[in-house]
Amino acid sequence: MSQIKDAQNVKLFALNSNLPLAQKVADNLGLQLGDCTVSHFADGEISIEINESVRGCEVYVLQSVSEPVNTNLMELLIMVDALRRASAAKINVVMPYYGYARQDRKARSREPITAKLVANLLQDDRINRLITIDLHAPQVQGFFDIPVDHLRSARVLINYFLGKGLTVDDLVIVAPDHAGVSLVRQFAEKIGGVPIAIVDKRDQANREQADETVPETLIGDVDNKTAVIVDDIVDTGSRMANSARLLKKCGAKHIYAAATHAVLSHGAVGRIEESPIEKLVVTDTIVLPKEKQSAKIVQLSVAGLLGDAIARIHSHQSLQPLFK
Amino acid sequence: MSQIKDAQNVKLFALNSNLPLAQKVADNLGLQLGDCTVSHFADGEISIEINESVRGCEVYVLQSVSEPVNTNLMELLIMVDALRRASAAKINVVMPYYGYARQDRKARSREPITAKLVANLLQDDRINRLITIDLHAPQVQGFFDIPVDHLRSARVLINYFLGKGLTVDDLVIVAPDHAGVSLVRQFAEKIGGVPIAIVDKRDQANREQADETVPETLIGDVDNKTAVIVDDIVDTGSRMANSARLLKKCGAKHIYAAATHAVLSHGAVGRIEESPIEKLVVTDTIVLPKEKQSAKIVQLSVAGLLGDAIARIHSHQSLQPLFK
Amino acid sequence: MSQIKDAQNVKLFALNSNLPLAQKVADNLGLQLGDCTVSHFADGEISIEINESVRGCEVYVLQSVSEPVNTNLMELLIMVDALRRASAAKINVVMPYYGYARQDRKARSREPITAKLVANLLQDDRINRLITIDLHAPQVQGFFDIPVDHLRSARVLINYFLGKGLTVDDLVIVAPDHAGVSLVRQFAEKIGGVPIAIVDKRDQANREQADETVPETLIGDVDNKTAVIVDDIVDTGSRMANSARLLKKCGAKHIYAAATHAVLSHGAVGRIEESPIEKLVVTDTIVLPKEKQSAKIVQLSVAGLLGDAIARIHSHQSLQPLFK
Amino acid sequence: MSQIKDAQNVKLFALNSNLPLAQKVADNLGLQLGDCTVSHFADGEISIEINESVRGCEVYVLQSVSEPVNTNLMELLIMVDALRRASAAKINVVMPYYGYARQDRKARSREPITAKLVANLLQDDRINRLITIDLHAPQVQGFFDIPVDHLRSARVLINYFLGKGLTVDDLVIVAPDHAGVSLVRQFAEKIGGVPIAIVDKRDQANREQADETVPETLIGDVDNKTAVIVDDIVDTGSRMANSARLLKKCGAKHIYAAATHAVLSHGAVGRIEESPIEKLVVTDTIVLPKEKQSAKIVQLSVAGLLGDAIARIHSHQSLQPLFK
Amino acid sequence: MSQIKDAQNVKLFALNSNLPLAQKVADNLGLQLGDCTVSHFADGEISIEINESVRGCEVYVLQSVSEPVNTNLMELLIMVDALRRASAAKINVVMPYYGYARQDRKARSREPITAKLVANLLQDDRINRLITIDLHAPQVQGFFDIPVDHLRSARVLINYFLGKGLTVDDLVIVAPDHAGVSLVRQFAEKIGGVPIAIVDKRDQANREQADETVPETLIGDVDNKTAVIVDDIVDTGSRMANSARLLKKCGAKHIYAAATHAVLSHGAVGRIEESPIEKLVVTDTIVLPKEKQSAKIVQLSVAGLLGDAIARIHSHQSLQPLFK
Amino acid sequence: MSQIKDAQNVKLFALNSNLPLAQKVADNLGLQLGDCTVSHFADGEISIEINESVRGCEVYVLQSVSEPVNTNLMELLIMVDALRRASAAKINVVMPYYGYARQDRKARSREPITAKLVANLLQDDRINRLITIDLHAPQVQGFFDIPVDHLRSARVLINYFLGKGLTVDDLVIVAPDHAGVSLVRQFAEKIGGVPIAIVDKRDQANREQADETVPETLIGDVDNKTAVIVDDIVDTGSRMANSARLLKKCGAKHIYAAATHAVLSHGAVGRIEESPIEKLVVTDTIVLPKEKQSAKIVQLSVAGLLGDAIARIHSHQSLQPLFK
Repeated sequence: MSQIKDAQNVKLFALNSNLPLAQKVADNLGLQLGDCTVSHFADGEISIEINESVRGCEVYVLQSVSEPVNTNLMELLIMVDALRRASAAKINVVMPYYGYARQDRKARSREPITAKLVANLLQDDRINRLITIDLHAPQVQGFFDIPVDHLRSARVLINYFLGKGLTVDDLVIVAPDHAGVSLVRQFAEKIGGVPIAIVDKRDQANREQADETVPETLIGDVDNKTAVIVDDIVDTGSRMANSARLLKKCGAKHIYAAATHAVLSHGAVGRIEESPIEKLVVTDTIVLPKEKQSAKIVQLSVAGLLGDAIARIHSHQSLQPLFK
Repeated sequence: MSQIKDAQNVKLFALNSNLPLAQKVADNLGLQLGDCTVSHFADGEISIEINESVRGCEVYVLQSVSEPVNTNLMELLIMVDALRRASAAKINVVMPYYGYARQDRKARSREPITAKLVANLLQDDRINRLITIDLHAPQVQGFFDIPVDHLRSARVLINYFLGKGLTVDDLVIVAPDHAGVSLVRQFAEKIGGVPIAIVDKRDQANREQADETVPETLIGDVDNKTAVIVDDIVDTGSRMANSARLLKKCGAKHIYAAATHAVLSHGAVGRIEESPIEKLVVTDTIVLPKEKQSAKIVQLSVAGLLGDAIARIHSHQSLQPLFK
Repeated sequence: MSQIKDAQNVKLFALNSNLPLAQKVADNLGLQLGDCTVSHFADGEISIEINESVRGCEVYVLQSVSEPVNTNLMELLIMVDALRRASAAKINVVMPYYGYARQDRKARSREPITAKLVANLLQDDRINRLITIDLHAPQVQGFFDIPVDHLRSARVLINYFLGKGLTVDDLVIVAPDHAGVSLVRQFAEKIGGVPIAIVDKRDQANREQADETVPETLIGDVDNKTAVIVDDIVDTGSRMANSARLLKKCGAKHIYAAATHAVLSHGAVGRIEESPIEKLVVTDTIVLPKEKQSAKIVQLSVAGLLGDAIARIHSHQSLQPLFK
Repeated sequence: MSQIKDAQNVKLFALNSNLPLAQKVADNLGLQLGDCTVSHFADGEISIEINESVRGCEVYVLQSVSEPVNTNLMELLIMVDALRRASAAKINVVMPYYGYARQDRKARSREPITAKLVANLLQDDRINRLITIDLHAPQVQGFFDIPVDHLRSARVLINYFLGKGLTVDDLVIVAPDHAGVSLVRQFAEKIGGVPIAIVDKRDQANREQADETVPETLIGDVDNKTAVIVDDIVDTGSRMANSARLLKKCGAKHIYAAATHAVLSHGAVGRIEESPIEKLVVTDTIVLPKEKQSAKIVQLSVAGLLGDAIARIHSHQSLQPLFK
Repeated sequence: MSQIKDAQNVKLFALNSNLPLAQKVADNLGLQLGDCTVSHFADGEISIEINESVRGCEVYVLQSVSEPVNTNLMELLIMVDALRRASAAKINVVMPYYGYARQDRKARSREPITAKLVANLLQDDRINRLITIDLHAPQVQGFFDIPVDHLRSARVLINYFLGKGLTVDDLVIVAPDHAGVSLVRQFAEKIGGVPIAIVDKRDQANREQADETVPETLIGDVDNKTAVIVDDIVDTGSRMANSARLLKKCGAKHIYAAATHAVLSHGAVGRIEESPIEKLVVTDTIVLPKEKQSAKIVQLSVAGLLGDAIARIHSHQSLQPLFK
Repeated sequence: MSQIKDAQNVKLFALNSNLPLAQKVADNLGLQLGDCTVSHFADGEISIEINESVRGCEVYVLQSVSEPVNTNLMELLIMVDALRRASAAKINVVMPYYGYARQDRKARSREPITAKLVANLLQDDRINRLITIDLHAPQVQGFFDIPVDHLRSARVLINYFLGKGLTVDDLVIVAPDHAGVSLVRQFAEKIGGVPIAIVDKRDQANREQADETVPETLIGDVDNKTAVIVDDIVDTGSRMANSARLLKKCGAKHIYAAATHAVLSHGAVGRIEESPIEKLVVTDTIVLPKEKQSAKIVQLSVAGLLGDAIARIHSHQSLQPLFK
């Protein structure tokens, strides 16, 4: 708990994407959530009313750009417009899940770089700071010229595995694709210098065949080990489920998975449940509605992490411990 | 028909909001619609692929910001990002319906001005021109610093009424609220200097009571006349239906209605059908899906207007005739 | 009286357009006017010298963009340049009358939108806030991306009429043109839900014939009533005088007029005096020099309104009561 | 004469400050002046109407920021706003006299740098190019990030003196103050490597005493010579007249003066006429109204220089010969 | 060879970093290099003189930001400033090697993101396009909002290996660190779907110990194979040399290395020569001075690739084939 | 000594160009220098690590843009990027010597204006304030739109001469070129209204012949006087040495020289030593390494001036006394 003492000029508002997390963060900080009404007109346009003065305040707005992504993003942009015009002193956006982060480069001719577009929209709307967790590519920080406080949730996830009494000697951390190898090596170091393995999926750039079953190879050894697949986002779940099957085939004894952001789009929960994964550990950067809850899915909270970050930002203390 | 002769460097792309109108405009101009794929990933993020080169091209992108408004707006912003990065020479946005246009001022404390936000998003995304039709407030032109070609559809609507053989001497044009009086006077002048009347709805700023039935007065005389209610947008249809009932009570012989933008949100068609309105004439700036079609609703096309505008812009001819 | 307590870092400067109002505001706040010299070189260039330090100060600069409009606007822009370079912490522009506000849209081809140009000039000069009163179109707020505190003087004007013992039952509020109907309905609501009438001037967009006498119609009933013509600006006075004559003809018993901004350009006072208007009530957003004073013209002060706004801004209190 | 051949997309507009020069430039180029109406409303606001299409055109707008400086500057800014919104392809500002150019640095605490403000206003208004003549300080070019074509009129002035049959051996060029020494040396080189002298006025930074007669010294030798005082601007004429008197006292045989910009503010012509100056040679960057004309003042035209510049800019030829 | 036909308005300038490559590109295009003098004053300040007119030209400036990085970057920024002020129509920067690209994220508290700073400096200097090769992270494209033509040199490098008659069945492509795994998989696919291996260096984020010899593991099988280490940059050469030694230990038969950018900082050539690497294949994005040449190092030219890109950009053809 | 009392949120960092001056300023203020590591990677790229938190701090960064100019400038830009991303509240750049300041205008076609480029780079990097000393042209202040505190070191230099017991009656201050005459007159006034003289170097704009010995003339009288050559920068020393020789020839009894910025590029010290200059007095805005020290060169510190400025800025006191 990292309560804010002199809180009269600090306000935390929650938009529609993740009210439970916002409430937990507010509780952590000893704050009331700010009073605002975010609704939709009959024609689908967003209507925002801020029901208390924000003049001269240091405002935090919590919103994940999760499904419905475009509506959640627009809610945020409109809220910032309203706050700025209402004379808020500082507008800090707390975006636990940064949507569109995977569209971070032109992989093919004439592609947009939507992750940069999102950064531009936020910056042109004149926010003062972005607080986010586990960006898909750390380079997205450079899409901004304002301060980005990029928090890492690895400690939260690792504590789960350490708490379960897993023997470090038995562990191998598995990257489900090539791009995730750096992340997986960092995770493996933090858990205690354990070995890694990589699912070597070919033709990954070749999206037209994304649905076809591509023969995959595992690089590295998992035989008779406890394998933990680690990724930043679990979306359709196919990659994780397929990786788990490959690990099984390669002799893994137990198979776990961990991901910060539980996008879990249509069909994902079923895929996880049918796979050899024993537990998928995720955080609450994205709300898990009833229909996405499952005995196999464990959700841990980042509210402490975010509350700590806000308290430190407010009192101008270093966030260094939270970046690791 | 205003075909473009040297069309090799001119491309017209349509996003998802209004393909039928885009196709008609392309047909008018003798162009093929540009080849692009606008789809959604499983998690709801928009995916855009432009399947032909746009290097050095003068590009027109047609998109109405109608329901789903936020998704349609994001489609447009992402498309522009892709076009700019793909070295398009000029990016002209054709937005037949400018969503959020009614949120054009702070009517109350701490409101956003979302119509300006939309303008900022487009300008910061570096579009070169906006072509739009019948803005809710003409001041929205000033939200932009780039050229805005603001076309007027009144001629299209008026031709319908003149074509029906209405006697001008019998007509009275009715403003369903105070803000629309200027529009209605202009419409009345164009149709031939006919008189106007105004529905004098009180407490209109008082949104909390928007649902309550407010006693309304008519200012002006409609007795034994053919009344045409004119508005720029028909949204829930309540205002039009209520106005029609008031006109009936005040002795109007026939009651018609006209509006450029057929938002017709949930329940609107029913309200129109149950009202004393004989015909509601609208344009196709917004697609009318099957469930919004009705024997009472006549839809006229602005494709000729838009095609003419594009042809004139391309050949650097004045658009003056289209602004009237 | 809304005195500022800890005033050492708050400074209010007045430029040349409206020193008496600035002095009244300063008196209200218990402040001295800041010491600056605004003069003109022999060649007409403006010379500004700020004779006291403004480092780290919250500065308010009061200037109406009234005649000479261009010189007054440039005085303001130059003052802001000087303040910024002199390390003022916050620059708040208090512009009781926003000149050029009527040029707020392109009504015809190739027109400028000078009200937006003025907004751009101020924003590019990096002011932090605009405080203004009764904008011609509320959409002008959206021409800015900084906070605009848009105060309403209606309460000041209405108090005059209520103070005169006018019977509400007798009253009708009259819009002298179509664009003013919303304003007039709001005014009528605030004064107690009284009826309205509208002067239905045709061909108003047709400026070439602006001088010709256009036959005008009144919509609504004023017979044997006390009519109050309400407008935001009284400029040449022709529209008000003509409206008054029409009201007379339609049977109005007493005719008053009210307007926030007394531009009263050449000949206006004479037109008012010769008209059937009994009293024209205006505010002091624009100075009334001797030659514009008249027994028929009553000037009320907005100094209390502005002083209250500055005191609330300084102490980060909501301005909500002043926006109504 | 430097006529433009393919002139259909090139337009030259003149605002109110210097119509005769604009007409001469147009004649030089074989162009008609563009059709626009620049007038003032009753309240002093500027009204601009552009009466011909400028879509896709390369536009040149000629305006000197001479008295009335603020009005002339605003005319220009408003014209540019109108041209941009009217889809002009390129907006080139031809500003023969750049007003406020002497306010180019903070000489004392809390001064504005108005020459930079003017540059910002023009750039933020999105002009594409500035064409100007003999800036007071050449560093003003650096106030812009767009191309500035800085033309030099020295050749025009020198031709006058050479044409008069002055013996170069007899000449000495005189700087009337310290800041002008570089300009004077360049002028002396162009005329043929003649010597220079400097009026050593003390306490020049001490403006409070600007009116007092300060004892001045001449550095350099003018005895029995023909002295030509050279300055960029002649404003009140005091400095030139005083310098001439000092030269007389120091033995100069003949005294001439030359300046590019004839500001000649109130009283200047009298001061020149009463001084020992035989002829003051100026250009027509600023109009000389009747009351400023004098037998002692010779006005030469820069129309050829400007016409040549425009023709070269249009055809993408180097302007190098015009910069010397 | 991709000669430009109508080349009168196209100019290619070379600054100091890589004249030989610029000359080759010019030869390819059938152009003369533009005439400019880039030198240094006695105090180290850069002096640039452009000796031919660039008015209205489409200009390409070739400069690698290689050692001396800061001077080369400033040369480029100053050249762009000069070109813009000299009225170049389009300024295209050809930067074969993008220096500082590895500082692309905040890996630790209070680090700069210098790759973004470089992007900002270029964009704020108003270049129109960046043409570059093999960015360290493809996300750097998103640091720009202008078009970035990101060319890939893999085909050039692969052709070398295929030309040497290597049996694809024997090959394994090796990533020398975790971050390079995606690049290596793409390379392996292009060469024909061969397997990959990864040098699993631990504690890579732990820079303090960068010099210590960290025990490394190989993931994947290279026994009796021909291993090709592939990286985008070879800088100190330590990582490559160490990887080669590990491969040797793991049974590799032949060891080659390939990298696009031959930074080869102090001592690198010696490290390569002493390692078991048979040949290191690089391109000429960076000049190899005599002291960096070695029998083990093969340099291939990207001049054809760049020439082709410029020719296609000039004629508005798609660059798609060059992005692969 | 001007110590800062409440210094916990004030930090002064020094980069590599002038550590001794930074240390003296810190001592003056009673501050510790901030802990940062500025080093270079093997490939020449700059590496900056800030080793203490700067969140919410008012930061001052001291760096002269002296040789190596480009590296020193980039160090500064990178440091500012890091500070901004690290959430510093205000970033004040203290640049005792502003490199590239002499490239402040286009003297010839197609020249850059590098002094403006430097200003743009700093402003686009979002610094909040520049504190600098004796700019080459005061107009450079106008290259910025942020506050520039332009300190003058004349008092420091003059105290030296007054302290040496020079008789004011004997003195003449000499401008070594035309551009410096204003500076020299100001210096002469401050020392007590003494006369001035000017070295009249011809063809100064003609750089090609910069090395040739041009015959120079002295304007003004130095016979039997103590002449002090005053300039803002002493670079190659040629101009000063040549001026001294001319003064000798013209009869000067003693010859001194003074300059704020001791660039003293290669060979300069030798030129000074071989000249008739008795003492060259400079400040420590630029470090004088051992090889540039000489018995003829006296270095005075501006640390007191800078410390005083920082203390006043911190406490929002006027800097007026330091601008003189």
